[in-house]
Amino acid sequence: MADIRVTVWNEFRHEQKPDHPARKVYPKGMHQVIADHLNAQPGIVARTATLDQPEHGLTQEVLDNTDVLTWWGHCAHKDVKDEIVDRVHQRVLDGMGIICLHSAHFSKIFKRLMGTKCSLLWREIGEKERLWVIDAAHPIAAGVGAYFELPQTEMYGEIFDIPNPDHLVFVSWFAGGEVFRSGCCWHRGRGRVFYFRPGHETFPIYKDANVMRVITNAVQWCAGDRGPVNDVRHVKEPMEKLA
Amino acid sequence: MADIRVTVWNEFRHEQKPDHPARKVYPKGMHQVIADHLNAQPGIVARTATLDQPEHGLTQEVLDNTDVLTWWGHCAHKDVKDEIVDRVHQRVLDGMGIICLHSAHFSKIFKRLMGTKCSLLWREIGEKERLWVIDAAHPIAAGVGAYFELPQTEMYGEIFDIPNPDHLVFVSWFAGGEVFRSGCCWHRGRGRVFYFRPGHETFPIYKDANVMRVITNAVQWCAGDRGPVNDVRHVKEPMEKLA
Amino acid sequence: MADIRVTVWNEFRHEQKPDHPARKVYPKGMHQVIADHLNAQPGIVARTATLDQPEHGLTQEVLDNTDVLTWWGHCAHKDVKDEIVDRVHQRVLDGMGIICLHSAHFSKIFKRLMGTKCSLLWREIGEKERLWVIDAAHPIAAGVGAYFELPQTEMYGEIFDIPNPDHLVFVSWFAGGEVFRSGCCWHRGRGRVFYFRPGHETFPIYKDANVMRVITNAVQWCAGDRGPVNDVRHVKEPMEKLA
Amino acid sequence: MADIRVTVWNEFRHEQKPDHPARKVYPKGMHQVIADHLNAQPGIVARTATLDQPEHGLTQEVLDNTDVLTWWGHCAHKDVKDEIVDRVHQRVLDGMGIICLHSAHFSKIFKRLMGTKCSLLWREIGEKERLWVIDAAHPIAAGVGAYFELPQTEMYGEIFDIPNPDHLVFVSWFAGGEVFRSGCCWHRGRGRVFYFRPGHETFPIYKDANVMRVITNAVQWCAGDRGPVNDVRHVKEPMEKLA
Repeated sequence: MADIRVTVWNEFRHEQKPDHPARKVYPKGMHQVIADHLNAQPGIVARTATLDQPEHGLTQEVLDNTDVLTWWGHCAHKDVKDEIVDRVHQRVLDGMGIICLHSAHFSKIFKRLMGTKCSLLWREIGEKERLWVIDAAHPIAAGVGAYFELPQTEMYGEIFDIPNPDHLVFVSWFAGGEVFRSGCCWHRGRGRVFYFRPGHETFPIYKDANVMRVITNAVQWCAGDRGPVNDVRHVKEPMEKLA
Repeated sequence: MADIRVTVWNEFRHEQKPDHPARKVYPKGMHQVIADHLNAQPGIVARTATLDQPEHGLTQEVLDNTDVLTWWGHCAHKDVKDEIVDRVHQRVLDGMGIICLHSAHFSKIFKRLMGTKCSLLWREIGEKERLWVIDAAHPIAAGVGAYFELPQTEMYGEIFDIPNPDHLVFVSWFAGGEVFRSGCCWHRGRGRVFYFRPGHETFPIYKDANVMRVITNAVQWCAGDRGPVNDVRHVKEPMEKLA
Repeated sequence: MADIRVTVWNEFRHEQKPDHPARKVYPKGMHQVIADHLNAQPGIVARTATLDQPEHGLTQEVLDNTDVLTWWGHCAHKDVKDEIVDRVHQRVLDGMGIICLHSAHFSKIFKRLMGTKCSLLWREIGEKERLWVIDAAHPIAAGVGAYFELPQTEMYGEIFDIPNPDHLVFVSWFAGGEVFRSGCCWHRGRGRVFYFRPGHETFPIYKDANVMRVITNAVQWCAGDRGPVNDVRHVKEPMEKLA
Repeated sequence: MADIRVTVWNEFRHEQKPDHPARKVYPKGMHQVIADHLNAQPGIVARTATLDQPEHGLTQEVLDNTDVLTWWGHCAHKDVKDEIVDRVHQRVLDGMGIICLHSAHFSKIFKRLMGTKCSLLWREIGEKERLWVIDAAHPIAAGVGAYFELPQTEMYGEIFDIPNPDHLVFVSWFAGGEVFRSGCCWHRGRGRVFYFRPGHETFPIYKDANVMRVITNAVQWCAGDRGPVNDVRHVKEPMEKLA
């Protein structure tokens, strides 16, 4: 089986501001931490791409050689060019998996795939989160037990304005009184989409073993085998044979 | 209970071309036939809007006073302005129902709501279609029996590239060998979406009693009661009370 | 529109034990409190039935005249006769709605409808529960705001071993660290099924205004119009007409 | 990766009657044809079990060493002992996959897993069936093209009275005018369930390359990795740690 080719995309703005706390947690950017972790897994090869590269690092050639794209954005969603969003969108529908992380709930590409506002509640006091496994049969939940905890995190609360997930894998409990559907799967065209909530830029979320286990599982799930999708086609004759 | 306020939108281009066969079937446009039918139902008041009116007939004021919008388009999807699509999209997410008819599968608003290509197979030889009821428990299927037939229609075939419907109400059989998910429901934000396949411009589909019964049922379903959706909100304190 | 005919079923064992705390909260049984509330709503008429009546109060005649059945059981699930479970099951598949309350997750009828173990976590220390609305578009959530609270309740936690709900309406947060899918809808045959978590026998849960609002909403949803379902039928000829 | 251990179960009554046409098509029983095919695939080892063996060939030891069970029954559903159905049901909920074939739609185990009547229409004139792929992203559809045909088969038609499938993979078209959801997936507890329509006893359906490709794909899907499911557990303390 060929290696899964992952492109880890990051807005990479917070981490480059001299005094931003994200810089201390992720001096080389969180994409580097995620990519390094994935490259340490058998059967996965990961590279990175960031907003301020030409074409945001997402040329057609890069996308054509990507099986799974991970996306992190926060303060610069609007700086992502629509033509690049179109390109990524098309690739997902043609079979590339995509994992949207944390504040990527408001990214153009996630909203494009969902067709909804993707709005939610939020609070930033560094409270405890427990991520409960709801669907133990799902490969994305493998190996994390009944639940796992993040001692300090930003809260996201319901209503998360998304289409009904095809699979609901995790639901989060927050110390401050909220719940959230924090691991959700959808199918869009030939592609698979996973949204995973954890990931604030100033807590060391992407250094947590359980979070990284889930992202690794999700890479494997999103890369899943897929057949062709018929595109619009004119079929002239009754009982016409299709290739 | 207040009347359901419907706006019947039509591209209205085919029917205005002097020699187009649609003109014979729908001399005043198919929107007029649909609106007249709906206005004859108790509890429904319908008006019309068309592409070539200012703002496509869909001003903010019109949309704010619309509970359910029906949409038919075919040859001029690209002429619908993006800002009007944004406005309609926002209203759906805020609670307006929408019924997309036939070739509206390729309309900007339907693709926006789905997030997929919405592609399909097609053949135009006027063959027989049988629409089978798959979910007899669904109010949209009320009153049409186990199935109903259209003696001559355009064929649409799978794969219909859409997100998994929340409710699958009808599946079509075509004499020429294809099947199609021809009545599908989704929830997007506060709004309900129904796609209904029948509706070619040169067959008198919108004069068929079963087709019109389904559209009437769908208007009632799409207008269903809905509560508020939380928008993105900053919740500062643990256990903070929300209004 | 005819009144919705509800039968409120209760095991009614706890409340008859002289020293059981449930007796203080519900001296006439919790079925009486639920039925009284429903009878105070326009368009609903409710009667009661209990385990120790002949045929558990659920004769064929009673069921044939019931649009929605509510079910509460806890310590005597095994005393419910299989033939009565068969009868109730058949009526649900033929179109009667059913609302399973709290510990009815382990009732024979609920397990029969689900096909799974229906197991869960539990803790009984009288902690706070917040029920968050996840699907604001669902009529069962009408009128309760973004969430509502029960100050003291038994905890139920995930994994709740159920088939994926057709609609997930509420997710609960518990002070002690758990989450739970506490309002779930399914369609089975012509019938609608709603599971609603609140309802411990010694906390006055069925005197809470929000809980009773949800049960009233659920009665209305479960009574929803339904058409016929084809039963197994031998169709002898191609293109044979079906009534 | 360890081999997938399959047990191919067959009622095996038709094929043993001296003059039954099934005997000519499947002289050793259709279980033998299916098992031989699966044993020819890499990574799969299959054995067989039949109704008239002690405990129907499904001892606890056999089930404990089965990853995926395939089931074919038709005229003797009622002869399957309830205690064996209980045992198989429990194993599915604990993680064994199950593939129910053709007339197994009316088997006790399938009805137990579904909770519905599982009724349908049928006609037996040996007409053509086209199985259209609806979900090209599903591994069960790999390798069969846009559709495949069976030149002569028994017809099954909608409404198939089942819970909404978690994945709808195939929809069939029949020459005589019907449609059918002929490949459906569900999750029940830790186990995966696939229903596959083709399989009449007197047409050589299990000798068709596409049918056998789908069954092989389904074995692989149903054997998918699964984690543990919490059973009912008493959690005494708030924020109690769970293993």
